[in-house]
Amino acid sequence: MTATGPTMIQALIFDVFGTCVDWRNSVAREVAAVLPQVDALAFATAWRAEYDPAMARIRDGARGYVPLDDLHLENLDTVCRAFGVTLEAPDRLNAAWEKLEPWPDVVGGLQLLRQERIIAPCSNGSIALMTRLARYAGLPWDCILGAELARDYKPQAAVYRVSCAALRLPPDQVMMVAAHNDDLLAARAAGLRTAFVPRLTEHGPDQATDLEPTGDWDIVAKDFADLAHQVAGHG
Amino acid sequence: MTATGPTMIQALIFDVFGTCVDWRNSVAREVAAVLPQVDALAFATAWRAEYDPAMARIRDGARGYVPLDDLHLENLDTVCRAFGVTLEAPDRLNAAWEKLEPWPDVVGGLQLLRQERIIAPCSNGSIALMTRLARYAGLPWDCILGAELARDYKPQAAVYRVSCAALRLPPDQVMMVAAHNDDLLAARAAGLRTAFVPRLTEHGPDQATDLEPTGDWDIVAKDFADLAHQVAGHG
Repeated sequence: MTATGPTMIQALIFDVFGTCVDWRNSVAREVAAVLPQVDALAFATAWRAEYDPAMARIRDGARGYVPLDDLHLENLDTVCRAFGVTLEAPDRLNAAWEKLEPWPDVVGGLQLLRQERIIAPCSNGSIALMTRLARYAGLPWDCILGAELARDYKPQAAVYRVSCAALRLPPDQVMMVAAHNDDLLAARAAGLRTAFVPRLTEHGPDQATDLEPTGDWDIVAKDFADLAHQVAGHG
Repeated sequence: MTATGPTMIQALIFDVFGTCVDWRNSVAREVAAVLPQVDALAFATAWRAEYDPAMARIRDGARGYVPLDDLHLENLDTVCRAFGVTLEAPDRLNAAWEKLEPWPDVVGGLQLLRQERIIAPCSNGSIALMTRLARYAGLPWDCILGAELARDYKPQAAVYRVSCAALRLPPDQVMMVAAHNDDLLAARAAGLRTAFVPRLTEHGPDQATDLEPTGDWDIVAKDFADLAHQVAGHG
């Protein structure tokens, strides 16, 4: 680490879906409860597959900012039609995204990190979604940052920059933590420091992406406990 | 309480300066540490007196949104000149607003309220200021709402409405908590429910304002423990 290393980091901001929480099994659990006739894991994966295309139109400017809750609801309709099912209360299943289980190392790691530094999500989820998810999963955030503040979606630079500005910190004093190399690439381009924490089963047992760091990120940690250790400068 | 009473309240949002924390004695403590030659309580009161006029220009549209941290810094310069003193590091004294002591009932009351409902500040303080103050004072917020989201200042209706919208809740499911009748008047006009908690020494021993509720607020509580009790429907 250089002189601008971990001792300069005032805040850590986190990708959430995949990095902090296991969306796939958690959403599948909620799907199974209301649609027992479908393959719940396949349904969850199909729902998530609509996520990026829905945001792309907003990033491109073809559509104004719409919170992720609403995109999730639109996408749920798409996926229900693809699976040939109808839902009486789509809003209720849509709340599955507020009930995601954290990976086992997350809550303890965040508690350690929070002792000395500000921690916050920098997610594409809305303030409402991130707030309810934090209550469900016990994520001890200091505040909620991310897409809704910028009214745009990652990996647009504005999302990272607006999040740092909301903390009144220069980007090089803020570290973005993610299990996704493309998120870190965009964060670094926006001037942030970067930490990669792989989540090898986010997409299931046959995951083929983000198994390893593809950039020379400031930190590569095996889990959030290791991250806390390295950020504290003892690693 | 009516059928739309406390059981419908999904979230409580809070005024902070005066309602949750004792800004006067806390700021005076920081002033005394760096300006031993001035009357620290008088200095704190004078600094706070510049607060509303500074925001008024932004509410009126004469000036674009500027975070409160910057207004505090401008006002500090004004007050230093009035007191005939100069500061070497005004930024450092400006951070006094991030180190305010909570009233003794606040942290315990918020912890109780948070068990069943979302709690958040709806302050004129910025996200950065509210985040650091929460860490200092141990305020267990679920998220940070308020002026910065609306890019305007209370008592403009947008601040209350944008805060509710950020939680994806209708205003009548959100209760504004304040020690200031004018804050509650504006919140009620924006459709929110209201709770008054008097702080009889916010302005010192000779306080003449906000000693009593001046409207028929949904709840009048003697402190945050009483508020939690009444919100839970046992009061």
